[in-house]
Amino acid sequence: MASYLVTGSSKGLNLGICNILASKPPSEVSKVFTSARRHTDALKDLISQYPGRVEFVLMDVTSEESVQKAVEQIEKSLGGKGLDVLINGVGVMPFTPEGIHTMNNLDSTLKSNVLSAHLVTRNIMPFLQKGNLKKVVTISTTLGSITRAKRYHTHMPTPAYKISKAALNMLMVQYSLDYADQGFTFFVVCPGWVKTDLGGKDADLTVEQSANAILHNIFNSTQAETGKFLNIHVPGWENAPGINQYNGNEIPW
Amino acid sequence: MASYLVTGSSKGLNLGICNILASKPPSEVSKVFTSARRHTDALKDLISQYPGRVEFVLMDVTSEESVQKAVEQIEKSLGGKGLDVLINGVGVMPFTPEGIHTMNNLDSTLKSNVLSAHLVTRNIMPFLQKGNLKKVVTISTTLGSITRAKRYHTHMPTPAYKISKAALNMLMVQYSLDYADQGFTFFVVCPGWVKTDLGGKDADLTVEQSANAILHNIFNSTQAETGKFLNIHVPGWENAPGINQYNGNEIPW
Repeated sequence: MASYLVTGSSKGLNLGICNILASKPPSEVSKVFTSARRHTDALKDLISQYPGRVEFVLMDVTSEESVQKAVEQIEKSLGGKGLDVLINGVGVMPFTPEGIHTMNNLDSTLKSNVLSAHLVTRNIMPFLQKGNLKKVVTISTTLGSITRAKRYHTHMPTPAYKISKAALNMLMVQYSLDYADQGFTFFVVCPGWVKTDLGGKDADLTVEQSANAILHNIFNSTQAETGKFLNIHVPGWENAPGINQYNGNEIPW
Repeated sequence: MASYLVTGSSKGLNLGICNILASKPPSEVSKVFTSARRHTDALKDLISQYPGRVEFVLMDVTSEESVQKAVEQIEKSLGGKGLDVLINGVGVMPFTPEGIHTMNNLDSTLKSNVLSAHLVTRNIMPFLQKGNLKKVVTISTTLGSITRAKRYHTHMPTPAYKISKAALNMLMVQYSLDYADQGFTFFVVCPGWVKTDLGGKDADLTVEQSANAILHNIFNSTQAETGKFLNIHVPGWENAPGINQYNGNEIPW
């Protein structure tokens, strides 16, 4: 019986995660807070399917005022209980096809992908401390692996995204170290290349494949995973011939 | 006969680098542009010792307008020639002793340590392309190694600095990949723990030890070093018993 907050969940992968969480029996998932800047029809559909158990929270993760208001709503709804799991899902991926010297979106991308995760995490922390599971899972990407930068250089001309995800990884490792002695598990996970607006239709995985694989990592994680950069495991993709394999192993930083 | 631009060189390690560069014979170092937000007495002393060969350039690296003005001055001074080496030295290290949830300086630290290096590098790039050496060396730190985050967790409560340096490392790796086929060498280097305002008096190395070691890395680097994270080599410190060793090896990301 665990409660979840998923940020950036108006569409795509994070909405997929919310759909699967909501479909679990209430004995496993008691509450799903779906937060986003916009209340989409897809979210409204989900909420009408599971009234009371899925709740929309308006949250602009780039504004601490907005995050604090959202957290107040969550606090009221929890009625004194803690929150069990935070999934930091928000992310933007602007393209810079003309070379890194033309990159004009680094500041805004750092705000959307790094500062946002810090604002949400630190403001929700008091409720996670009262929760039973104490898990913070952040959607990162192998594109944020500095070790693997060469592999993804020409395929994905998204330097601001890559830089922001390396920073996000370090942010979450810093959290993991600060909260290790309070029983917390912080890890970052690469969702793979997913057929969403962000990933495009030629991507490797369906939303359901990726969302299920991420939730598998979340459900099965223990404190032993804190501070790690995890790949998802998708059966059949362990040794795929392309640039992406989904073997569930750790990813080098 | 090479020309250098060193940013953030009003004091500390970067000033030390400028001092050593200026002391080299003109056949080795033809020109040193020292840039900073302030023209300090120490810089004025250096310039008066080597008139014409050391030149101060006013530059606030957090403002693209200021960077562009500085680059105009450098262009005039170069008189049609290229610039050989850029040393991105600027860095701030704010402390957050009360835990990462109290970190309120991430945005400003990313601006000072990451966006700044991008602004300088991209604006000076046309002159580096006309230069002979085509080297861009960025002062990073092992504190920016995500792999080694645990080692430095309690010693240095500077999460914004660590996060910014991980981002800076990825930024420079992205540059190295974009410019690999134009004969460029981009690397990041850890200067060690140095007795400066930033490092404090209990640090491992003198400014001269670190500056000489960094310059050794710069003088001896070839394109084989592009995209790498290099340690300095300080004789006697290869296997030091503490948390810092200065063995000249690559540092994990």
